[in-house]
Amino acid sequence: MMETVHVGLGERAYDIHIGPGLLARAGALIAPLLKRKKLCVVTDENVAALHIETLRTGLAAEGISIEVLVLPAGESTKSWPHFTRTVEWLLEQKVERRDLVVAFGGGVIGDLTGFAAAVLRRGVGFVQIPTSLLAQVDSSVGGKTGINSAQGKNLIGAFHQPALVLADTEVLGTLTPRDFLAGYGEVVKYGLLGDAAFFEWLEGRGPALASGDMAARIAAVKRSCEMKAEIVARDETEQGDRALLNLGHTFCHALEAATGYGDRLLHGEGVAIGCALAFELSSRLGLCAQEDPSRVRAHLADMGMKVDLRDIDGDLPDADGLLDLMAQDKKVVDGQLRFILARGIGQAFVTADVPRDVVHQLLVDELARR
Amino acid sequence: MMETVHVGLGERAYDIHIGPGLLARAGALIAPLLKRKKLCVVTDENVAALHIETLRTGLAAEGISIEVLVLPAGESTKSWPHFTRTVEWLLEQKVERRDLVVAFGGGVIGDLTGFAAAVLRRGVGFVQIPTSLLAQVDSSVGGKTGINSAQGKNLIGAFHQPALVLADTEVLGTLTPRDFLAGYGEVVKYGLLGDAAFFEWLEGRGPALASGDMAARIAAVKRSCEMKAEIVARDETEQGDRALLNLGHTFCHALEAATGYGDRLLHGEGVAIGCALAFELSSRLGLCAQEDPSRVRAHLADMGMKVDLRDIDGDLPDADGLLDLMAQDKKVVDGQLRFILARGIGQAFVTADVPRDVVHQLLVDELARR
Repeated sequence: MMETVHVGLGERAYDIHIGPGLLARAGALIAPLLKRKKLCVVTDENVAALHIETLRTGLAAEGISIEVLVLPAGESTKSWPHFTRTVEWLLEQKVERRDLVVAFGGGVIGDLTGFAAAVLRRGVGFVQIPTSLLAQVDSSVGGKTGINSAQGKNLIGAFHQPALVLADTEVLGTLTPRDFLAGYGEVVKYGLLGDAAFFEWLEGRGPALASGDMAARIAAVKRSCEMKAEIVARDETEQGDRALLNLGHTFCHALEAATGYGDRLLHGEGVAIGCALAFELSSRLGLCAQEDPSRVRAHLADMGMKVDLRDIDGDLPDADGLLDLMAQDKKVVDGQLRFILARGIGQAFVTADVPRDVVHQLLVDELARR
Repeated sequence: MMETVHVGLGERAYDIHIGPGLLARAGALIAPLLKRKKLCVVTDENVAALHIETLRTGLAAEGISIEVLVLPAGESTKSWPHFTRTVEWLLEQKVERRDLVVAFGGGVIGDLTGFAAAVLRRGVGFVQIPTSLLAQVDSSVGGKTGINSAQGKNLIGAFHQPALVLADTEVLGTLTPRDFLAGYGEVVKYGLLGDAAFFEWLEGRGPALASGDMAARIAAVKRSCEMKAEIVARDETEQGDRALLNLGHTFCHALEAATGYGDRLLHGEGVAIGCALAFELSSRLGLCAQEDPSRVRAHLADMGMKVDLRDIDGDLPDADGLLDLMAQDKKVVDGQLRFILARGIGQAFVTADVPRDVVHQLLVDELARR
């Protein structure tokens, strides 16, 4: 029961394997890529406590030995101090140009470790073994790596594609329901941005998937990876279409900044709310039917997820404050706000042509409902 | 009197302009590449004191304003603290993806600034304005960027090609004779590795070139850049032929490590001595005529340069110690020492097939002559 998605990037092409029990099979899956049977693994405290022995045993089965660096869990690890420590540690382990480094954890570990591999000896290969749903369907695929700056999130980094991705869907069983559903926010996003049939499938199978249905989990991760792979292959360094993957993210980044990038609002929760807002905005601009944002919100509510600004605890800035935060997004070009809007479910597009007053009124109305 | 060398790298192709007075013309040369007329310039104290006003005036002539970060001069600037400071400074200046960053200085500034540009928002463009001969003929061309680690030189970095290189040969007039001749070590290297006619030309024109003959300086920088551009276009990320550019460097890196990467031995001086040793080794292995290493040494001596181990002040490790240092080179693959050897002047090739005892005996003999 292993599915494979191929990311077609020429010399940088790679496979994403998806299924249960892949940690135990990691040795057999990685061995063909190795010049010598030694791997350096970067992980965090939570993942190490739960899964490092399973991975170690899986690799040892093929005679592959590992050295492990365990970093603190959490977003604050994606910073200069932990990054420089990781790079220097990898150099101390004498990682050579033809070796592979393993990123074993969620998005924070994947982004930081991938970036470390990108700059180590001007680039060594790495394997992503994502352990969160968010990392399996989004951050481990596509080669965006990096750390946060005092000036904003993900402002320092590199495009560096992994050599292989192993998405073990059994590992998802150890996530908290909140973390799982946050990752599901990104899954929903794929349906909303480009595949109405997938969204409809999620409306039907989402609850079973959340309860642990393994076949549904594999199918959802696979379809998400397929869509991301297809978009990334078309536009690796985000000159155009790749921006579709940012559906919901302009709102999300402002909300994350407003709530301190922490426990008040997880990234995937912000994406879900942001998708609902993007559809509401599209509807107000007459781009899609009024029923579309309602349908988006209904599915999120059905899954027990955060749906709108009311679901965010504590104070939020006013509409002008949120608009200012949106303007600080990394994708701003020549000071122009870009949005991903939709002509219907599964029909997203990129535009810089959104009247500021419509966005402002939307935020005023949404804030008034809190 | 401006020559141009084109580096043919497809989407990453760029021009190297070479000639006197380019700082004053920088505005006109850079303006076509800019989306907005603002540039962030990274430089060092020495270059800023001598040349920043000339550059500022040259850019202002086209309405381009600059912000300047002045770093300390010297190799120790190529380190994490100055690198992170530079990246954060560029972010504070709100550099966007379509902006260009300017590296204005020698190899240290070019390597550090190019690496900062490589990771800023996952990659912004940059312009190299190299002010040392070494940077004009070597480090500013080809896209190798990076900083040093506690584990060794240039172990952290990226391949990131500049968008433009401006090599102002007038600026070379402000170099000390020692710095100029160190850079000349890399010029000689090009003749030795692939162009016997160029080496012969240098034998004739080298002294005039060192005394300030501008036409000779332009010709030497141009031919060096042409050869580097041609090799880099063939092998951008050093999978094969690009290693030819490391003629003399395996010995050089060991000697630099032994002397502390400082004033006892400049990089270009180490390259010159390393080239002489590589030809001596080639001769002992019966690969080239005995006259070749003599001719190399004669030209270096003629130029008043360091020629062999005798010319390095202070203590050196013994032959075993030097061999150990050579084994720590970044280019070591699977523990195997690689050398660039030659079948004659202008006929270098890469090999891992060098008996350790021959290298050892060569070092013993050279050390005995001190």
